[in-house]
Amino acid sequence: MRFVKGHGTENDFVILPDPDGELELSAARVAAMCDRRAGIGADGVLHVMRTKLSPEVADQAGEAEWFMDYRNADGGVAEMCGNGVRVFARYLVDAGLADAGEFGIATRGGVKRARLAETGDVTVEMGPARVLGDSTTTVTGRRYDGVHVDMGNPHLACVIGDPVAQLDLTHQPAFDPAVFPVGVNIELLNPVGERRVVMRVFERGSGETRSCGTGAVASAVAAARLAGESTGTWTVEVLGGTVTVTLDEHTTYLAGPAVLVASGELNL
Amino acid sequence: MRFVKGHGTENDFVILPDPDGELELSAARVAAMCDRRAGIGADGVLHVMRTKLSPEVADQAGEAEWFMDYRNADGGVAEMCGNGVRVFARYLVDAGLADAGEFGIATRGGVKRARLAETGDVTVEMGPARVLGDSTTTVTGRRYDGVHVDMGNPHLACVIGDPVAQLDLTHQPAFDPAVFPVGVNIELLNPVGERRVVMRVFERGSGETRSCGTGAVASAVAAARLAGESTGTWTVEVLGGTVTVTLDEHTTYLAGPAVLVASGELNL
Repeated sequence: MRFVKGHGTENDFVILPDPDGELELSAARVAAMCDRRAGIGADGVLHVMRTKLSPEVADQAGEAEWFMDYRNADGGVAEMCGNGVRVFARYLVDAGLADAGEFGIATRGGVKRARLAETGDVTVEMGPARVLGDSTTTVTGRRYDGVHVDMGNPHLACVIGDPVAQLDLTHQPAFDPAVFPVGVNIELLNPVGERRVVMRVFERGSGETRSCGTGAVASAVAAARLAGESTGTWTVEVLGGTVTVTLDEHTTYLAGPAVLVASGELNL
Repeated sequence: MRFVKGHGTENDFVILPDPDGELELSAARVAAMCDRRAGIGADGVLHVMRTKLSPEVADQAGEAEWFMDYRNADGGVAEMCGNGVRVFARYLVDAGLADAGEFGIATRGGVKRARLAETGDVTVEMGPARVLGDSTTTVTGRRYDGVHVDMGNPHLACVIGDPVAQLDLTHQPAFDPAVFPVGVNIELLNPVGERRVVMRVFERGSGETRSCGTGAVASAVAAARLAGESTGTWTVEVLGGTVTVTLDEHTTYLAGPAVLVASGELNL
């Protein structure tokens, strides 16, 4: 089986080209590939299929030729992954399956527009960020206020006074289960300059991660609110690198590097 | 650059075929490959070179055609790695560079004999285990007695009464720096049957790992001593699988699975 390995700010993926939908991709097989010692290792699998051969999305894909069939590292199916779409777009162009510039990618969360810049950065439209209210989290006994942002998945983005570099995020930060009945992704951030923040993120079901695309957007929304703004471009420094979030009146964009590091054959 | 990824009981390696010694393998480049998110990810690199082209080992390699130039994940040069030799032997045979059966592999720790069984298991001669005395370790406040075993690298192998599955090995277990001035690899084990033990290991400089070849041998030595034996074959269950250790009067052998999971081109 052919594969490519790539990452966006250290959110990493095994890409499986399968234009004709011939792969049998069981949850166990995906989990074996994503195993970081016995497999290749990744946060998830980007299964590359032709939209017209994918019943799940064929009717809503519009002009998107390719479907990003995203799988989590445990083998489960997922709607969307912002950094995944950026790496998927980089793969399509490098493999000659799409032309550089702007194009649509079908996902279970709808068609996402991607754009490749000459610098190598890839931008993806992430859709609207909906602010649903305020809530709080508690990290190692300290309580922080935050903003409840819905990006298709739930976020609690907290601009805090304590330096995020010194937080202990080994364990799940506490949150209000009445507000977040299915759990929440929690971002903690410090403003460090003009429209610039440092963010750490505790992802629901994964623990602390090196990067989170929807979390970066939620963080920009929280930082913008605190500054009394609702549009503009924010730089978000994560453990795995730096991304840029642009908020406009109707939608949001995530931009940053997307890198392919290896390709070959898998025996799994 | 061509690469292969493989593992032995989840001790995993990036294999770099370089028969003519053409690769420039800086510490930074090795570290980038071994990075588990921005690279391929591995515990170390097995750089495959012709012995006669490798000044470091050419004069002591005898009949060993191939040199395992081992690099740690941080890029540093290392003498030896027992599971590494097993995966290296599997690679040589699969790539047609050696015939199945028994052959020598040059390492900085001397020539190691490897043998491929029809079952797929690979056995490597690990050299003599030298018992240097007794010492103790302390894990989360509990003190355990152990045996100081030298396998070329230092070990403290402790047969304990508490179930090893319940130990917290997040932090470095305490040891006597007068006995182990350059640190020590610490094994904790439970006998679970006739010549069979379950082992966990805290490796010097790495923390808890899924497997450790020299640690498995040291554990068999400690279990054998407790049973009043000095030779025989012991089964050692580690987090990453099961290996077999054979002690004879002059040397030791480590046997177990060695698997190649992927191959291709690296862009690092």
